[in-house]
Amino acid sequence: MTELLTERSGRIVAARKLTRRSGRDSAGLFLAEGRQAVAEALADPDGVREVLATEPAAAAHRDLLAATHVPVRLITERAAAGLSETVTPQGLLAVCELRDVDPGALVAQPPQLSVALAELADPGNAGTVLRTADACGAGAVVFGAGSADPYGGKAVRASAGSLFHVDVVRGAPLEPLLTQLRAAGVTVLAADGGGEAALDELHDELSGPVLWLFGNEARGVPADLAAVADHRVRIPMRGRAESLNLAAAAAICLYATQLAQR
Amino acid sequence: MTELLTERSGRIVAARKLTRRSGRDSAGLFLAEGRQAVAEALADPDGVREVLATEPAAAAHRDLLAATHVPVRLITERAAAGLSETVTPQGLLAVCELRDVDPGALVAQPPQLSVALAELADPGNAGTVLRTADACGAGAVVFGAGSADPYGGKAVRASAGSLFHVDVVRGAPLEPLLTQLRAAGVTVLAADGGGEAALDELHDELSGPVLWLFGNEARGVPADLAAVADHRVRIPMRGRAESLNLAAAAAICLYATQLAQR
Repeated sequence: MTELLTERSGRIVAARKLTRRSGRDSAGLFLAEGRQAVAEALADPDGVREVLATEPAAAAHRDLLAATHVPVRLITERAAAGLSETVTPQGLLAVCELRDVDPGALVAQPPQLSVALAELADPGNAGTVLRTADACGAGAVVFGAGSADPYGGKAVRASAGSLFHVDVVRGAPLEPLLTQLRAAGVTVLAADGGGEAALDELHDELSGPVLWLFGNEARGVPADLAAVADHRVRIPMRGRAESLNLAAAAAICLYATQLAQR
Repeated sequence: MTELLTERSGRIVAARKLTRRSGRDSAGLFLAEGRQAVAEALADPDGVREVLATEPAAAAHRDLLAATHVPVRLITERAAAGLSETVTPQGLLAVCELRDVDPGALVAQPPQLSVALAELADPGNAGTVLRTADACGAGAVVFGAGSADPYGGKAVRASAGSLFHVDVVRGAPLEPLLTQLRAAGVTVLAADGGGEAALDELHDELSGPVLWLFGNEARGVPADLAAVADHRVRIPMRGRAESLNLAAAAAICLYATQLAQR
């Protein structure tokens, strides 16, 4: 019989440290939980150290696990619960290498569409914006200092696999990076409820390389960064809501850009 | 000195029942927490039974509370914590009457834009869709049987006051309602990742009265309801994401409709 790793096993104790940002950054690893995320991770097996699965999960996902050369280790339900950030642990996790891309690569070859997040607080929003950016064809998402970590459990889950599709840049000081991107021909647009430009009046500005800058859920884009942008852009609203939820605003801006870039 | 209501006071025990759907429905009341929600509630004071505030909150929001004839009752911090669904209770709540509108009124005078939710599970999404619908000028949001309750604490919070701007219809069987709305000239569009119509190819369909139907976060719109719709509409995607988060998809569909209806 194969030995089950318990919550006291060295490997599980080490993996548990990956549920904290400091642990992820010092190990250079993160956890991807659930079938969808593990399948996306295994599409690039060199980036996966190991898969951890409870016996029921290993049986349920036998097809997926039989097709990979990445080591699969069986773990107890309790060990799985300790690694999960969900109410109902999936029993299936991949230990993955962080996927950070150097900001210099972004400047050297700016994608047609990219996103930067300044002080975005909510991990669910971080993952949702990654997913929306991916759906709209963005090549990169920059998580500025003070933003939620895209490698945290909630963010990975909310990204629904998109973390594995889009280049992730973390921790770069945003002001010099945005300035460099502008110099490289990228139009920087800051989403701002009080912006002087209306989204539906932008056309030529959206058709070249664009970076959208989104800010904190409550405070918006910091003023010093908004000052760097080419335009501060508002979404025209007809109703009585004062503003949109950040993930909803990002979806509208990115979709409008995707349409203009066809 | 004014007496503080504690968590054992009859009024607080009664208010605490409003943190559950069954309690809200039997009392016909719900709780709106925090300055923004309470201010929106007090804009129609006939719909507010009382305001509950801790002493610090009453002092901080003196301007708001002095301007209303609705009774303000002081409560302990512990009582406030028991009524709150947030990690950091605001100490300010309004006890409000449910704002349900009869579905017949919707059929008699269909708004240019409305939304129906079928089996939407997440209360945060319920509130976010309400907020987005409001921002895009929707007149009503229908919460079908099995959908999250827009009067729950998380939903009220996520709606950011929009619950007080848009007509709310709850519990109506969706299939006959959608059929009646179609007969009244409303175009019913079901958001569906596998839909035969692409959002960016719809034009005339969006310009008249439109109802958007969104489904469950995981399962989408139930097949029997999708069959009632005029079109099943997909959002064209360029990237590798399989689908969008429900609130993001709703934002894109409602914004596109708002633009077409100008």
